[in-house]
Order: sequence, then C-alpha cells, then structure tokens
Amino acid sequence: MISDGPPPARRDVRLEGFNSRSSFDEALRWIDGHSQPLNAEEVSVAAAAGRVLARTFLAPADQPPADTAEMDGYALRSAETIGAGGYNPLPFRLQQDRRQLNPASVLLISSGAPMPLGADAIASFGLVRSDAAAIEVIEPVTRGAGVNFKGQEVKAGAALIDGSRPLRPTDLGLLASFGVTAVKAIRRPLVRLILTGCKSLSGGSSGDANGPMLRALIARDGGLIEPEAEQLPEQPARSATPEDSVQSVQSALAALMAKPGADLILVCGLTGTGPDDVTPLALDAAGSLDVHGIALHPGGSAGMGRVGETPVILLPGSPLHCLCAYDLLVGRLIRRLGGRASRLPYALRQAAVGRKIVSSIGNFELAQVRLVSGEAVPLGSAGSGGLAAAARAEGFVLIPAPLEGYRPGTPVSVYIYDQADTLEGRDL
Amino acid sequence: MISDGPPPARRDVRLEGFNSRSSFDEALRWIDGHSQPLNAEEVSVAAAAGRVLARTFLAPADQPPADTAEMDGYALRSAETIGAGGYNPLPFRLQQDRRQLNPASVLLISSGAPMPLGADAIASFGLVRSDAAAIEVIEPVTRGAGVNFKGQEVKAGAALIDGSRPLRPTDLGLLASFGVTAVKAIRRPLVRLILTGCKSLSGGSSGDANGPMLRALIARDGGLIEPEAEQLPEQPARSATPEDSVQSVQSALAALMAKPGADLILVCGLTGTGPDDVTPLALDAAGSLDVHGIALHPGGSAGMGRVGETPVILLPGSPLHCLCAYDLLVGRLIRRLGGRASRLPYALRQAAVGRKIVSSIGNFELAQVRLVSGEAVPLGSAGSGGLAAAARAEGFVLIPAPLEGYRPGTPVSVYIYDQADTLEGRDL
Repeated sequence: MISDGPPPARRDVRLEGFNSRSSFDEALRWIDGHSQPLNAEEVSVAAAAGRVLARTFLAPADQPPADTAEMDGYALRSAETIGAGGYNPLPFRLQQDRRQLNPASVLLISSGAPMPLGADAIASFGLVRSDAAAIEVIEPVTRGAGVNFKGQEVKAGAALIDGSRPLRPTDLGLLASFGVTAVKAIRRPLVRLILTGCKSLSGGSSGDANGPMLRALIARDGGLIEPEAEQLPEQPARSATPEDSVQSVQSALAALMAKPGADLILVCGLTGTGPDDVTPLALDAAGSLDVHGIALHPGGSAGMGRVGETPVILLPGSPLHCLCAYDLLVGRLIRRLGGRASRLPYALRQAAVGRKIVSSIGNFELAQVRLVSGEAVPLGSAGSGGLAAAARAEGFVLIPAPLEGYRPGTPVSVYIYDQADTLEGRDL
Repeated sequence: MISDGPPPARRDVRLEGFNSRSSFDEALRWIDGHSQPLNAEEVSVAAAAGRVLARTFLAPADQPPADTAEMDGYALRSAETIGAGGYNPLPFRLQQDRRQLNPASVLLISSGAPMPLGADAIASFGLVRSDAAAIEVIEPVTRGAGVNFKGQEVKAGAALIDGSRPLRPTDLGLLASFGVTAVKAIRRPLVRLILTGCKSLSGGSSGDANGPMLRALIARDGGLIEPEAEQLPEQPARSATPEDSVQSVQSALAALMAKPGADLILVCGLTGTGPDDVTPLALDAAGSLDVHGIALHPGGSAGMGRVGETPVILLPGSPLHCLCAYDLLVGRLIRRLGGRASRLPYALRQAAVGRKIVSSIGNFELAQVRLVSGEAVPLGSAGSGGLAAAARAEGFVLIPAPLEGYRPGTPVSVYIYDQADTLEGRDL
C-alpha cells in the first residue's frame, strides 16, 4: 500500500529497546492529521445530547411567533391606564373573547398565551382590585409590560447553535421549542477495541483492567464500540511463548486489524520490546506502522499507523501507560473524529506545586497529583503501571519535554478528574 | 397525612400572585432535608462508570501480588553485575526456566511477568550485548531496577476508592485489576416526569421543549426516568379552560403524583398564578405542598412538597425558568439521592464582569453570560423564558439575594457549560 505520511517506523524493536522515539509533538501532529470529522447522520433530538451539529442551526421562525404573555395577569391597553391610582381606580370590563380586546376591557391571561389583538401590556394581579366581572386598575401600566413581543428573543434565520460544541440539554429544549425533532449531527466514531490480554500486575490479564477502563473512556469521548469487541482467543503466557505461537498471535492481530468497518482501531497490549510484543509487527503487516515509541511517560511504547484509511493506535498493556496514551492521544482522535474540540475533557484549576514534581528531560510527562490544602502534590512514582495512583489523584499536571519537572511553589495548571473538585469549598 | 416539615404552603395563589415567598436558602434547606442517599444495589463493574460506591473499596490483595517485572529486559541478580563495564563485560547464561534463577544466569522477561525466584533486578536491553544463548552485561544494575515488588503499589486492605465521588474510568480498571466484577453502589434515583404541556413561546406545547431538556439533565445528574413518563392526555388551552376542565386536570395530576414507585416526582408546568395553574393544588390534595413561590429568578414559581415520603418538585413551564429551577434545586436533589456531591456539575472559571449585571434585591438570581475577551457579559434580559440565551451563553453567574447585581470589573465565578471552555486557548 502507498503511504502518504512520514516514512514508516518498520524496525523491529524487540530485544533492543526504543533507540529512537518520536516526540510527543510529532505524535500529536499524526493524530491531528488523521482525524477529519466523520460524515453526518440524522439523529433524533431526544437522543442528541452530546452530539455535534454538522451544520449551524438557524432559527426556522421568530420566537415568540406572535406577541405572547410572559406573566400571569390581565392583558390591557396601557394607554387606558394613565392616571390610575389607589385613590383613582379605573374600572375595566373583564372580557372572555381571547382574540381581540375591546375598549376599556381586560382579559385574564396566563404566561405563555398569545396576546389578544389590541392589548400591549399586562397588569399583574398586584396592580388590580377584582371581584366577579369588575376589575379596577390601581396603577398605570407601562406599554410592553409583561409582553414578549414577536421575534423579541429570536429572529427567524438567526444562527442559534453551531458545531463548535456538543449539544447541551438546553439546546435540545431550544430545538424542540421550534418543533424540530431530528438534526444532522457528526457520526459517532465506531471503535474496534482489540485486547491482547497481556498479564497485569495482579496476575490476571490486563485486558481485564484495560477493557472496562477503555470502554468508559471511549464512551466519555463520544465513541461507539463495535458490539463484538475482540479479545484474542488464546492469551499467550508472556515471555514463555514459543516462536510459532508468537507468530500465530501476530497473524491473528493482523487479521483483526484488516477487517473493514471501524473508524478507528485500538489495540491494547504487546507494544513493548519483549519477545512477544508483536502488535507493531502485526500493524506493519496489515498496513503501515507510522510511529512506534514516543517520548511520552507514561505511555512511551504506544504506536500509530493505518490499515487502508483507518487509523490504528497501539496502546501499552500496562494500565497506567494505557491510560496516559489513551488520554493524550486516542481521546483526542475520537473527539476530533466526532466533531468535538481537541482539548482534554477535564476542567482546569490553577495551583502551586506543593512538593517537587520530577520529570526526565526529553520526555513529555503526565504526573498524577493530589490537591493538599490547594497545592499540587505528586503521587509516588508514575513508573509502576497500576491505577491505584489515579484513584487517589484529584487530577494531573503535564510537564513539557524540555523541563525536568516543577519546583515547589511553581504555579501549574491541574487537569481535574471530577468537575465537583473545581468547586471545592462551595455549597453550590 | 402528618407533616414533619415547615407549615404547609396551602394558600391558593391563583389570580393573586406570590405575596410571600420562601427564600432560596429555605428552598435549599428543604432540598437537603429530603435527599438522603438511596439504598445500595449490586452493579457490574462494566456498567459502574459514574456510580457512587456504597462503601469504601479496600484492596482485597497486594498489588502486585508478587515481585513483577515493570519493564522488558533480562532478570538477574544485581550483585552479580558489580564491576561490569564496556571494557569488562560480564558473561551470563540465558536460561529458560521461569521459576528460579540459576547463578550467573539471566532470564528474558517482559513487563508484567512475575520475577523468577532469586532475581532482584532487570537489565534493560541497552545494558547488555547478546547473541544466541550468551549475554554480556556491560553496566552494573542496581538492586530493584525494573522490579515492582510485591505490595509496592497497594497493600492488601488499603482504602482505594470511597463514596465521595462518582467512579471514574480508571476506577473500573483498578477494580477489574483485582478480579472484581461487581460492586455495591447507591441506587440511581427513579424519577417520574410529568409534563403538563402548557403552551410555549413558539405556540407548541412547552412540554415539547422541557421534555427533551429535562430528560438530558436528569440523565446528566445520574437519575433514571420511569419508562412511561407521564404527559397529561389532554392539554388544556391555557386561560380558556372551563372550571370543570381545570378541576379534571387537577385530579389527573393528583392521581399521577399518588402512584407509588418513584424516588422523586417532577411536575413541569401550571405552577404560576393563572386560573389553570393547578399543579400546587394537586400536590396539596395528593400530599403536602411545603413550599410554593421562591425568591429565585428565573424559576420563582417553583414549588416543593411530598406525597408520602416521596419528594415532589414543581417546575415552572416556561423553559428558562424550568432550567434554572431544575439546575439549582432538582439537580441537587437527584445528585444527593444518588450519593453524588451536592455541587453544580459545572466547572468554574474566574472572570471580571464586562458589562453591568442587573439583579433585583431580595431575589437569588441566575444570569446567563457570554465570555467576551475573558470578561463575563450578561445576555439580554433573563425574564423572557426562552432558551436562546442559554444557547448563546458560555455559562452563568449567581447573584445572592442581598445584591442588586455586579458592576463592571467585579470579579465573579462563572459556572461553565462546556468543560472545554475552561481550557480556552489551550491545545491540550
């Protein structure tokens, strides 16, 4: 197949290590070069929360479509209330006809109802004295009081919602208020998730740990997962696998990648430098391996390439490395394919560093932090691959490749896992 | 029925207006007094994202459960590498037995695999020269290098995840890494949504606008909606309804509220002071109306009460009022019932006020704002009830009751609708 990207990263790194790695910026550029938003599809408004419109929604009509009551009270002609007062109550007839207001008459009206012809204001119940059919107005009413005039909120043709953000609950309400029941939205990326089932820290397969985590992350970023996610049928016993078994894993992986239908293929595990780390070779066989080995920590053994036009990302099997490579690379790809903003889906909070955060020069690093008395404190070593640190963290900081970390007191931006943590100390 | 709350707000406010209203703080206290977290249920880990644990998760075992390789390389005895160098390569035998390391031997090992007995370090591929079965180590290897020792990340019994926050994707991975497949989580509140279908600004029923909005908001806050949501079969033509029809709407609403089974009942519409605003009367008939009329804008015609032990919230039918009362009162109730934090599920951003934000003294107010060059600028008048302003807003500010708004330049906290907007100007 013909490659239109950088020269492929074909070299077999097994038993050698990553002697040359792509920079994190190069990896990001690859992601951004392979994440054109997908085509549009019709989606019902009821199911459109979080979806991104394929084209700007223009108001199909004025809102309100006619002069409308925006409060409960009595519709009247404001000019007829001039001079009204507590010592000069002005009498009005209470009429029932809802279409046209007679002279010296009022009509009982509820918020949301169309104004009768001729009325230009609403007197609230506090401005009148009433019994049975007689109404006295005891204060003058300003023209327009309580009335939402035709087109006052929205003029027909106005651009109301564009594709720069996911649809909010209020957008669904706004669409429905025009009688719109379906919209054209960017298709959700269909993700093929292939878990190689390499061993995890607790002795089980790390497919077990990464599977539930990746499914929840993909859903968060708007991706759909192919119904029959792929787990390699036989889990190789790592480092104890005869060469022909390694070969068969490689062939099985290449076959799973080559099946058409997905917008993105994720393979988790077997990306490193051990003898059975054949995922990169499988991608090279099925298509092209463009990047393998990134100056990123955790997550440096990630890779990326294509089968036909379909991007394929290789995620490390070690859960913390998998998480980091997912969040910084794959999440972005899924969000961009689905028309969302590239940026990380976490809120930011500014904090000072509370204890030195160490990073190695040359690596773009992610460090989990706790917030202790408002300061960002790193959580142990990030090298060990488990998710316990992520569970204890309020968020993480990013350390650009040229830095060797942050000294205590340095102001940093903390990406916060739970939005509520940005509101610490608030009751609302 | 016996009321254990404040004296019930029984008065019929129709055709009179709210002459006395509860403060927003009183309304919040009512919410907090009727939102004990629900009981626990078993949930599969795969479906547990966003759920709140009913009890703290304690590590059931050490992690890792045994000394484990955290990198690819050669497992060895570090003491045997003392003195190794480029000019003094030390020879080792490459053994295949994975259980126990022989003297002067190394074992090829992959990240995640258990260390063989006797080995205490891993030499990366860069520290060795190899061919076929002979290995030369060319640098000394530190004891513990590349090894994740038993219990190094987590000791059995350690508290790992508590009920103070919804489960994150990484928590699912952590649970799965211990072989946990199900957890006890707080039940999701089951919400009965009753739409009265009062008229909206565009002439359709505002049930149309509020329904899709409320469903998305309830889902966001972790609530489940009863499958057959209730729409009143006949939509009364507002202000044109004969008294017996108004009576029949009131009876139908009371019957819908009285059905058992929901954890929370929401009724949207017919909460105001017009002749057909019978929702408060229906709640009074079915149970108790504790609060009706709140010094809150938009949303002041909201009400709250109980049928038996079940809280019932009455939301204004005008969409912007409905939104505000939902966000400040109902969302909090649903989050608390489901064990989540009370606080609003929006990120905060600090900004200076760019143009005067007006509020009336005595009302707790919510003002939609745009962020223009980083300044918070209010969006027209909030009185008009439509959702177009919410679509154009990046978020909102809250104005406490004693204030008459914010002058330009005042620093305010903006609650941000889309998390990505907290990262403005950032690529990550």
